[in-house]
Amino acid sequence: MNEIPATMRQLRSLVTPEGELRLSVATVDTPRPAEREVLVRVEAAPINPSDLGLLLGMADVSQAAAGGAADEPTVTAPIAEPVLRLLAARVGDPMTVGNEGAGVVVAAGESPEAQALLGRTVGFIGGATYGEFCLASPRMCLPLPDGSDAADGASSFVNPLTALGMVETMRREGHTGLVHTAAASNLGQMLNRICRNDGVPLVNIVRRPEQADLLREQGATYVCDSSEPTFDGDLVAALRETGATLAFDAIGGGPLVSQILNAMEAAIVPDDAPYSRYGSDVHKQVYVYGALDRRPIELHRRFGFAWGVGGWLLTPFLARTPPEDLARLRQRVSDELTTTFASSYTDQISLGQALDVPTLQRYAQQATGQKFLLRPQL
Amino acid sequence: MNEIPATMRQLRSLVTPEGELRLSVATVDTPRPAEREVLVRVEAAPINPSDLGLLLGMADVSQAAAGGAADEPTVTAPIAEPVLRLLAARVGDPMTVGNEGAGVVVAAGESPEAQALLGRTVGFIGGATYGEFCLASPRMCLPLPDGSDAADGASSFVNPLTALGMVETMRREGHTGLVHTAAASNLGQMLNRICRNDGVPLVNIVRRPEQADLLREQGATYVCDSSEPTFDGDLVAALRETGATLAFDAIGGGPLVSQILNAMEAAIVPDDAPYSRYGSDVHKQVYVYGALDRRPIELHRRFGFAWGVGGWLLTPFLARTPPEDLARLRQRVSDELTTTFASSYTDQISLGQALDVPTLQRYAQQATGQKFLLRPQL
Repeated sequence: MNEIPATMRQLRSLVTPEGELRLSVATVDTPRPAEREVLVRVEAAPINPSDLGLLLGMADVSQAAAGGAADEPTVTAPIAEPVLRLLAARVGDPMTVGNEGAGVVVAAGESPEAQALLGRTVGFIGGATYGEFCLASPRMCLPLPDGSDAADGASSFVNPLTALGMVETMRREGHTGLVHTAAASNLGQMLNRICRNDGVPLVNIVRRPEQADLLREQGATYVCDSSEPTFDGDLVAALRETGATLAFDAIGGGPLVSQILNAMEAAIVPDDAPYSRYGSDVHKQVYVYGALDRRPIELHRRFGFAWGVGGWLLTPFLARTPPEDLARLRQRVSDELTTTFASSYTDQISLGQALDVPTLQRYAQQATGQKFLLRPQL
Repeated sequence: MNEIPATMRQLRSLVTPEGELRLSVATVDTPRPAEREVLVRVEAAPINPSDLGLLLGMADVSQAAAGGAADEPTVTAPIAEPVLRLLAARVGDPMTVGNEGAGVVVAAGESPEAQALLGRTVGFIGGATYGEFCLASPRMCLPLPDGSDAADGASSFVNPLTALGMVETMRREGHTGLVHTAAASNLGQMLNRICRNDGVPLVNIVRRPEQADLLREQGATYVCDSSEPTFDGDLVAALRETGATLAFDAIGGGPLVSQILNAMEAAIVPDDAPYSRYGSDVHKQVYVYGALDRRPIELHRRFGFAWGVGGWLLTPFLARTPPEDLARLRQRVSDELTTTFASSYTDQISLGQALDVPTLQRYAQQATGQKFLLRPQL
């Protein structure tokens, strides 16, 4: 235990009552693991879209400004009034950030499952991975193969299990093909590799021609670009060929969800079918797992009555998954860590660099093809 | 069999390629039942909201005009161009109308289940109940108690089983209370009686003060009027008291679905709860079973990720229901036909009167408190 310092640096995100986001690197006591916990020395943590909501509090980062002392830098940015009301519950609470990461287990509670991980390099889900050390539950740790680089395991949890969770959900709910939006993301590329390996027909929806090219270069068969005038027809054709009746949507605003449902219905109903006011009896489902577009979802109902739209998140999916299935999924991630589940990073930054204004403005963009890795030990 | 005439009168609804709705009373061959069918002499058939879409083809009935010969009247009304496109599959096909009705089984196929109904008065689902005779499947017939008036059984299928189906769905999916919109409808009043009998907490949402009064007079505890400025707060308070996390919505357009989901989430999350970007983990569900408002559904997402919105229809619900459960539901309808499941009608009309322009304009309104019964033998 004597290698563990008494205090450590940790990134904090505060929303002030005046409507200001304030990011800082706090010096706090290094936590001690309880009986069923481990302490991980965090080597690498990705900045995922799912982290940015909490980290940036929907602030206007174009107006971000540096502040604080040279050895204790801060960055501030204004938050619009309507957004601030949504954040009421977090005002005044300097929150820890970072959903996942990888590193070495340097301390463990007394329970056997915690002790078993001592000394291992693990990928894990934390909630405070943007810091030098972080507590984790053994159930939320994925031991990496011996000799793994922590950077390879930094994204071994959220994206791999989300992508596998989509395919599992498809099978559990009786669908035989998938649709994915924002499909050129790191997650989308991973899903494309899984579906190719498993023979699952996948319709990739992207928003720009270069994203379509990227997926096609990676062997994707069905790619529909929503910026093309032929999009609706392209989508119906791809759905007719794949028979996909389940979509996972990261956009979550505007008309796209109902474009997908309407295209599914059009693909199901033959052109010469007799009129039915109730639509086909084939269930069409869209799960919304993100909110890249903050407008309301608009459902233009021309898709009958056999449909569903709902929220989907990794944590409740994992909670519903039997232990033997979870073990199988985790083993697959470990076995294919540097192939199917490889993530690539365009930038590696320290905790301090995360507070550098131009750097922050870059990772806040969530641009496809750009991905940041935080290295808290730098 | 000699009491059955060779031909019969039947209401038909035609959409012409030119964009005109044309209703007529056709004279057609009286059908003969196949092995597993019965022929019902239709005594009474309700005009339900679920019939009007097919009957009227979303035509502009304010411009309806009478036509045809004196003994073969017709009525026509224009259909707007965008609506006409949605109806492409029915253009040129003079469709039969009428989802349910009641009458006497006057002929039956050779199968035992068909023969068992011969001579009985039944409520039934047909698809062509707006005619003097109609075929039905024995599975879709509810034998009425001896001595029943057919008028009492005319609405014994769609509304009673829909209302019971809502409560069944609530139990199957693990909810413990219900929300219902357009709650002062005949169906809504029925649901209120079921929930009172069964001790199921029910939040009734109505659109006018007089509808709220009507439900309160019938013993409803929770009534929220969406025309009141206090609606959102009233709804949260009612949801907090009832714990209802499942809604059935007949409106199906505009912001109401997300008002309900947001109010459910607000009722679940205590005011002093710590901030969670993902919302509560309590699943909130809205099933849309109607389309009284033809605007798109707008989902303003402040209700986290544990939510679902979907279509709900009686027929697929019945198809998913095990035979023993279905028998229990049907027995209950039969036992409580003139109490819990009583329907009242403001107008009784003949097939010919259904084509009378002022009469048509009245039943097309779908006004709460007004209900028409068609009597094809008049």
